Amino acid sequence: MELGVLYSGGKDSTLAALLLEEFYDVTLVTAHFGISDDWTHARETAAALEFEFERLELDPDVARDAAGTIREDGFPRNGIQQVHLHALERLAEREYDAIADGTRRDDRVPTVSRAQAQSLEDRHDVDYIAPLSGFGRTAVDRLVEAELEVVVGPSEEIDRADYEAELRAIIADEAGPGAIAECFPDHTQTYVTGVLE
Amino acid sequence: MELGVLYSGGKDSTLAALLLEEFYDVTLVTAHFGISDDWTHARETAAALEFEFERLELDPDVARDAAGTIREDGFPRNGIQQVHLHALERLAEREYDAIADGTRRDDRVPTVSRAQAQSLEDRHDVDYIAPLSGFGRTAVDRLVEAELEVVVGPSEEIDRADYEAELRAIIADEAGPGAIAECFPDHTQTYVTGVLE
Repeated sequence: MELGVLYSGGKDSTLAALLLEEFYDVTLVTAHFGISDDWTHARETAAALEFEFERLELDPDVARDAAGTIREDGFPRNGIQQVHLHALERLAEREYDAIADGTRRDDRVPTVSRAQAQSLEDRHDVDYIAPLSGFGRTAVDRLVEAELEVVVGPSEEIDRADYEAELRAIIADEAGPGAIAECFPDHTQTYVTGVLE
Repeated sequence: MELGVLYSGGKDSTLAALLLEEFYDVTLVTAHFGISDDWTHARETAAALEFEFERLELDPDVARDAAGTIREDGFPRNGIQQVHLHALERLAEREYDAIADGTRRDDRVPTVSRAQAQSLEDRHDVDYIAPLSGFGRTAVDRLVEAELEVVVGPSEEIDRADYEAELRAIIADEAGPGAIAECFPDHTQTYVTGVLE
């Protein structure tokens, strides 16, 4: 069965892909708005891990709406959630038997409720799988340490291909670089460079 | 890392074990009350799948309480939930780094809430993992068809090692065989006999 994992190059979507390759023919699929070329970092990790790779183009209107939500809220959670659900819709339209993401049990964002999952499956005749939704934070941290080569650093310095980088770019363009510090709390990100042998 | 999966010989706990063996040293652990020898069926499946196997003895008082709950309710859901949470507590007391079960996204019973999972982890310093909690019914059915050799039939005829058989035996002993038909709706069970090559 062919499965597409929504892929950022981060630890969660990488672990999701490694778990699922036991049962599926996995392609890593990186969603982007065409604003930056951050998606190429995910392509490099996919090559290092020897997975198939595809790009998924998202609707730029969704990026602008999400950037507006983040500026109004003063925090990124709801805007990122909007983009994630849009990316899953787009991925579900592709010809995969199943789609997946790296959502974890303890994530506050993005989250996909059971009702949202069922709706996605029914409308697109596809299985939606969240293989890490039964893993807590400590379990994921231990697996990362045991399985992955990673680089860790502040969000603005780490070469990931999640939506955040492009949303930051839109907000900086609309409201100046200062708006980013107001809306995005400092946090560290992890970027995967390979698997440990 | 050593991981114990609460194991019945059914399709869900078998798939859970197969998913987790990518990352953990998996032992299949079958919980029982010492009332019947149904646990030996799970040992046979574990041997066929070449997994380590252990028994986990549960508290007979919990079985009697659960049987009482089922007779009062007239349906098995709450009694089975009581037994499942007790079995997870007992499993968490063992020397595993992580414990797991076959709970699925669409299961009504047993369910382990995020708060219950976190509490189990904090009190026993163990990771609790529900690897199928991000898989819906259709995804599981497709994996079973692709991966497992199974036998399907009515609950009372299938040689599984879940709690239901022992709870049925207690209820029949206390209230006669007719009480079983009153409390347990007819449903089919699946017992795994091997993996497809």
